Amino acid sequence: KRPVKAPTGTELHCKGWLQEAALRMLLNNLDPENGENPDELIVYGGYGKAARNWPCFDALVRTLLGLENNQTMLVQSGKPVGVLTTHEHAPRVLIANSNLVGKWDNWEHFYELDKKGLMMYGQMTAGSWIYIGSQGILQGTYETFASLADRHYQGDLKGKIVVTAGLGGMGGAQPLSVTMNNGVAIIVEVDEKRIQRRLETAYLDTTAPDLDTAMKMARQAAADKKPLSIGLLGNAAEVLPAMLEKNFIPDVITDQTSAHDELNGYVPMGIPYEKALLMRKQDPEKYKELSLKSMATHCRAILKMQARGAVAFDYGNNLRGQALTRGVTNAMDYPGFTPAFIRPLFCEGEGPFRWAALSGDPADIEATDQALIEAFPYKTRMVRWLEMAAEKVTHMGLPARICWLGYGERDKAGKIFNDLVASGKVKAPLVIGRDHLDCGSVASPYRETEAMKDGSDAVADWALLNCMTSVASGSAWTSFHDGGGVGIGYAMHAGQVTVADGSKEAELRVTTVLRNDPATGIIRHADAGYEKAVETARARGIIIPGITDQDLG
Amino acid sequence: KRPVKAPTGTELHCKGWLQEAALRMLLNNLDPENGENPDELIVYGGYGKAARNWPCFDALVRTLLGLENNQTMLVQSGKPVGVLTTHEHAPRVLIANSNLVGKWDNWEHFYELDKKGLMMYGQMTAGSWIYIGSQGILQGTYETFASLADRHYQGDLKGKIVVTAGLGGMGGAQPLSVTMNNGVAIIVEVDEKRIQRRLETAYLDTTAPDLDTAMKMARQAAADKKPLSIGLLGNAAEVLPAMLEKNFIPDVITDQTSAHDELNGYVPMGIPYEKALLMRKQDPEKYKELSLKSMATHCRAILKMQARGAVAFDYGNNLRGQALTRGVTNAMDYPGFTPAFIRPLFCEGEGPFRWAALSGDPADIEATDQALIEAFPYKTRMVRWLEMAAEKVTHMGLPARICWLGYGERDKAGKIFNDLVASGKVKAPLVIGRDHLDCGSVASPYRETEAMKDGSDAVADWALLNCMTSVASGSAWTSFHDGGGVGIGYAMHAGQVTVADGSKEAELRVTTVLRNDPATGIIRHADAGYEKAVETARARGIIIPGITDQDLG
Ligand SMILES: NC(=O)c1ccc[n+]([C@@H]2O[C@H](COP(=O)([O-])OP(=O)(O)OC[C@H]3O[C@@H](n4cnc5c(N)ncnc54)[C@H](O)[C@@H]3O)[C@@H](O)[C@H]2O)c1
Ligand SMILES: NC(=O)c1ccc[n+]([C@@H]2O[C@H](COP(=O)([O-])OP(=O)(O)OC[C@H]3O[C@@H](n4cnc5c(N)ncnc54)[C@H](O)[C@@H]3O)[C@@H](O)[C@H]2O)c1
Repeated sequence: KRPVKAPTGTELHCKGWLQEAALRMLLNNLDPENGENPDELIVYGGYGKAARNWPCFDALVRTLLGLENNQTMLVQSGKPVGVLTTHEHAPRVLIANSNLVGKWDNWEHFYELDKKGLMMYGQMTAGSWIYIGSQGILQGTYETFASLADRHYQGDLKGKIVVTAGLGGMGGAQPLSVTMNNGVAIIVEVDEKRIQRRLETAYLDTTAPDLDTAMKMARQAAADKKPLSIGLLGNAAEVLPAMLEKNFIPDVITDQTSAHDELNGYVPMGIPYEKALLMRKQDPEKYKELSLKSMATHCRAILKMQARGAVAFDYGNNLRGQALTRGVTNAMDYPGFTPAFIRPLFCEGEGPFRWAALSGDPADIEATDQALIEAFPYKTRMVRWLEMAAEKVTHMGLPARICWLGYGERDKAGKIFNDLVASGKVKAPLVIGRDHLDCGSVASPYRETEAMKDGSDAVADWALLNCMTSVASGSAWTSFHDGGGVGIGYAMHAGQVTVADGSKEAELRVTTVLRNDPATGIIRHADAGYEKAVETARARGIIIPGITDQDLG
Repeated sequence: KRPVKAPTGTELHCKGWLQEAALRMLLNNLDPENGENPDELIVYGGYGKAARNWPCFDALVRTLLGLENNQTMLVQSGKPVGVLTTHEHAPRVLIANSNLVGKWDNWEHFYELDKKGLMMYGQMTAGSWIYIGSQGILQGTYETFASLADRHYQGDLKGKIVVTAGLGGMGGAQPLSVTMNNGVAIIVEVDEKRIQRRLETAYLDTTAPDLDTAMKMARQAAADKKPLSIGLLGNAAEVLPAMLEKNFIPDVITDQTSAHDELNGYVPMGIPYEKALLMRKQDPEKYKELSLKSMATHCRAILKMQARGAVAFDYGNNLRGQALTRGVTNAMDYPGFTPAFIRPLFCEGEGPFRWAALSGDPADIEATDQALIEAFPYKTRMVRWLEMAAEKVTHMGLPARICWLGYGERDKAGKIFNDLVASGKVKAPLVIGRDHLDCGSVASPYRETEAMKDGSDAVADWALLNCMTSVASGSAWTSFHDGGGVGIGYAMHAGQVTVADGSKEAELRVTTVLRNDPATGIIRHADAGYEKAVETARARGIIIPGITDQDLG
């Protein structure tokens, strides 16, 4: 057990703010306030880690502390493997996590290498050091439920009951997202500690001792049109069928257990939780089989609820894909959340824009919140979000914020932030990054790129171009991972982080990266035939040969 | 049919030499003197293309002509998809070809997308615009046979008979490589035109009308200790078993048919060549099955020759992998050429360093040859190669040269080249690049990373770090591909190209890229536990945390 916490304040431990930012964000990912299981270096998403093991963690820290301003550290699956002399305008860190050659690109081979100490699962923001706790996903979840409400219930979840499962690193954002949209939620979770944690951080309102009570509480709150979130200890693969038996059909059904990982994520039904944890270590093969079978049951229950009128969607955990391997042939009958609710945003270069205050001072985040509200007063959903977030979101580790911004807005925000640091209104540099889940950064056929218009779901060229683009544009660090969210072999994705330290150099880097990064998303969607993306490119002067270059002359 | 040829001379058509170099090298890849089948945009290696289709080719040319010196063009599988404003020190072109998410990373899905016009197979240097004809592979093949001779026959192939197949873009280098090592070769090739072509360029000495004559000629030359290469029209899957029946066991047996591609590469036995070509289009499923069955027969014959005393090795075309899928369970009994002959070179950062003269003047290449011989007089194998190459190699398209150089040598050579351009001794800028087959750039478990000491054969993080490194170091263009040499899903690899135009900026870019690029190779091999790589890192001051950082303080 090694409690870890990022240093705060304005004093440098490294030789420059880019290295310092990488160091603090690495430490912040493993802060017990922030990461889910720091003792095992696990940050979130089942098995998503920040460093391969503790010796690698130490080497990362040591290397970052010594890294010069014209050097670049290479990180291979959570291990620092080299330091190269590049130049001042290059990234300070380049990261590649969990990537395997196609034919070997699966959990089986991954675990073989993991056992040998050669690999690490980086998830998206775990291995790329830009995890900011449940808030990170809270905004995405808020946007998703808001979109759903727009489409199905006139913009509001008032009086509607959402059933879901999983209160982990990402799933923990569900209850608050539903109540922020005025809805009622029952969230099934097998691990009592997770429920406790969400109560403590006020992401979850209350718990129910059993299913009947939970159903009763939910019905009452819905009837009263009051927002309420209820945690229910149990296994989703057991609870959902029980709900069906009791003729309890929610308005919305989804799931955020770590179904993408049948060994270290999902918990099978039919055995006590503690026994399941033991079996994980002692008989992993049996565990995996039970786990996949439970997912099939779980998925079938969702399908039945859909058939009986619930709005069902997959929340990016590959439950459908896993159930498919165990004979649920109609698993794909309900859609993923991206094509249903997120893709229209991607076509405008909208995506998750996040930042953290290296000062450690929440007032710095308040200053940035205010600055964005002033800069983008017409973005009403964002304004509403920022106001609610300021009130309801407890900071975990370094104070941080997230909101979704589009093309043209992200670089503008970056410049505003850099100016705030330069003027001293914000005390120390701001780290700006994003989830790998973004408009141009990911190829993930069961999630972000599911059901693309032209069928290019599995084309990974786009994610690679995004990765190279952020390096070429001057990120502080860039990362490329395999398998985030949906598991090894199911996704390839890139992340970028920049640092606004108030310098002119930072301004150039921050604005260049934040302009080009979402541009690749608009390009990707325009190429796939999305008219909205083409319109955005035209309107914003993004050069796409064969599409907008004629217009641009 | 659109005959294509690179412009030469010192006049710019683009707005800078980096763009101009990309333009000329793209055109040069499709020069009928250089590329194998330019009408179909195919450069080499079965189906390896330079542009997705002719409209994309036109768009590439148009975009390169207009590209500013602070812009970067994005290329997705042979199609220009965007132009971003980056900065002057960034690459001008970023390329991602043929990359698919793991679960979909196979020929089947590739062809589905290819048919829809969404994908292109880039091989290694085809889609990254740095193919320089058979010479490109000639040096590698020369090095391979020289290493083999070192190991098995006291440094010389005098009096030894090599049997192989395939006289395509890469395989065409085999006869000359064997004779440069004083050996005798019989090369089986199913396509008469390929044999003709190799005769014309003097890579092949002669042909034999039938197997018996070929065997007789080979035996005679071996007895006389005279170098000789003999082309034999036929199908390897038929000829090798016939040799066995006639008790003809060569000293060395290998193969360079395009076995990695069972549809557009390998030709099945038992049907006339012309009929096979028809079947390819009309009944691809049947063709593929026949093709894979023939490979099984072909591979079995190699195994039998090995059992009867021949030195057998796989020359990187995945024949063994394909045969394995058709029941040849012992296919892997003979080694790949990399672990057998190439890896020791990789541990010193040695790899294929190539360059082309944009002037179009062969005298420029002579000047560079001389300069390298002067700079590295102690590299006797290289000196011998350069002298023979100057004499025997016919330029195809732009005059070009290749030789293998190690860490510390490549950046030194880059600086020498840039100085030659600056001083006017070389008339126009030199383009410097390499095959994706290099020490740090590729993950390919059936070829370059076969049988790595630590079992990390399939770890693709390394190739990705190499890709990001060349972007961060200031390449002119960087590329990342899937499937080169061994087919879609079997490899991931990166390429980089720099341009020595005589400027100070070029010097910085060229030396930084050429220093860091092989450094990633030494790091990769040191991490895998190769002592020689660790020694090289120590001797050259390459910082590897946990291995050399203590030494370096
Ligand atoms: N944006 C997205 O696409 C998106 C967003 C959020 C989550 N996800 C995906 O959702 C999943 C959850 O992510 P996370 O970070 O919260 O993971 P996590 O591992 O931190 O949490 C998963 C939780 O599910 C619980 N759980 C496992 N099996 C269960 C079962 N059968 N019944 C009830 N509870 C069970 C676990 O106890 C744990 O608390 C992942 O697969 C993630 O990739 C995707
Ligand atoms: N460095 C390396 O690892 C390395 C080097 C050279 C080649 N290769 C591999 O070798 C293969 C050949 O490359 P290439 O560029 O020459 O390909 P290519 O397609 O240009 O040429 C292949 C040749 O093989 C012939 N051929 C196909 N089937 C045959 C058969 N059954 N019998 C006789 N001839 C047959 C074809 O007619 C063609 O001329 C590829 O798989 C390539 O990746 C690897």
